[in-house]
Amino acid sequence: MTYKLTYFNFTALGEPIRFLLSYLDIDFEDNRIELEQWPSVKHTMPFGTLPLLEIDGKVLNQSSAICRYLAKKANLAGSDDWESLLIDIAVDNFKDFGQCLKSYWFDPNEESKAARYVTLVNETIPYHMDKFENIVRENNGYFVNGKLSWADLFVVGVLDHLIYRVNVDLLKDRPNLQALREKVLAVPKIKAWIEKRPLSFDIA
Amino acid sequence: MTYKLTYFNFTALGEPIRFLLSYLDIDFEDNRIELEQWPSVKHTMPFGTLPLLEIDGKVLNQSSAICRYLAKKANLAGSDDWESLLIDIAVDNFKDFGQCLKSYWFDPNEESKAARYVTLVNETIPYHMDKFENIVRENNGYFVNGKLSWADLFVVGVLDHLIYRVNVDLLKDRPNLQALREKVLAVPKIKAWIEKRPLSFDIA
Repeated sequence: MTYKLTYFNFTALGEPIRFLLSYLDIDFEDNRIELEQWPSVKHTMPFGTLPLLEIDGKVLNQSSAICRYLAKKANLAGSDDWESLLIDIAVDNFKDFGQCLKSYWFDPNEESKAARYVTLVNETIPYHMDKFENIVRENNGYFVNGKLSWADLFVVGVLDHLIYRVNVDLLKDRPNLQALREKVLAVPKIKAWIEKRPLSFDIA
Repeated sequence: MTYKLTYFNFTALGEPIRFLLSYLDIDFEDNRIELEQWPSVKHTMPFGTLPLLEIDGKVLNQSSAICRYLAKKANLAGSDDWESLLIDIAVDNFKDFGQCLKSYWFDPNEESKAARYVTLVNETIPYHMDKFENIVRENNGYFVNGKLSWADLFVVGVLDHLIYRVNVDLLKDRPNLQALREKVLAVPKIKAWIEKRPLSFDIA
């Protein structure tokens, strides 16, 4: 089977897919679109969005749906329906947090963007990040049931990009999330990916 | 087992869960919070959001994660991993569309809201709704593989609220989506729910 991932030349929502493909030892084409190219190719994408994963030419969009599919193959999607549910909830809560950050950094109006930043730093970030920290603490160092799942890979994969975009150390004083990040990055297949992945502005 | 759904007194993201619980013939407490109450109870919710489903007192948030879990019990979550993936993609594409609409109707600035409305009506709505119409046409009247899945229940459950919020007939000239809506609403357990559900401002 052939796997081709199309995403921007940075980590963000593409990176959890790259983590999972690496974890699964799947060779994939890591097709990276530069931001300058994007306006001219956006209309060719199924919903005008990235990432896309093509499996044997079949085109798939939606990062978390793709991750869930790959995670099932990797036995990282829960050992029963209840555990899968808790993983899905963790991922969607983190995605919602990412969405809050994104509506800040994409705000075209400098004045409202500055106002948003104050709320972000004083409310949105501590509110969400403290919750995630508590969840990982209560679950023995992982998001769900004390064991590695694709929720952990998703969060760690996306995190660097969020930190770059908001320029806030989201892990400061959150030792359980810090430790989780180290654990994910030490998984041999992911470690090997990190060592060979191309640099991009968000992880330079 | 006891099921308690907490949501606002309208359809939107609560309604697909109500559809699925009804489809499964599960008795549930349909706990509805009035918008006036919301500011005083928001801080008691796990992530400050609704809907919540409590199963035997265990509190779950995230509408699509909850729907997926219930859909598995209802055999509406795909017959294999690939079909489940296609269902997940359909749901997330529709959720992204809903998010576009929501950022319009929640825009507090009247001027930018008016500008957004023009883009919404001329671009965002036709772009997405025509894609959904084509997907349903190409899949023999359903979102995925010519058979009922929770993607269909999700879209039909949420649709009335979106139509109310943007005051645009999203199904106009989209016969495949219209027919899908009729099919979902004619499923006996869902029909029975529709007949007995409380009225709210979005479906009055």
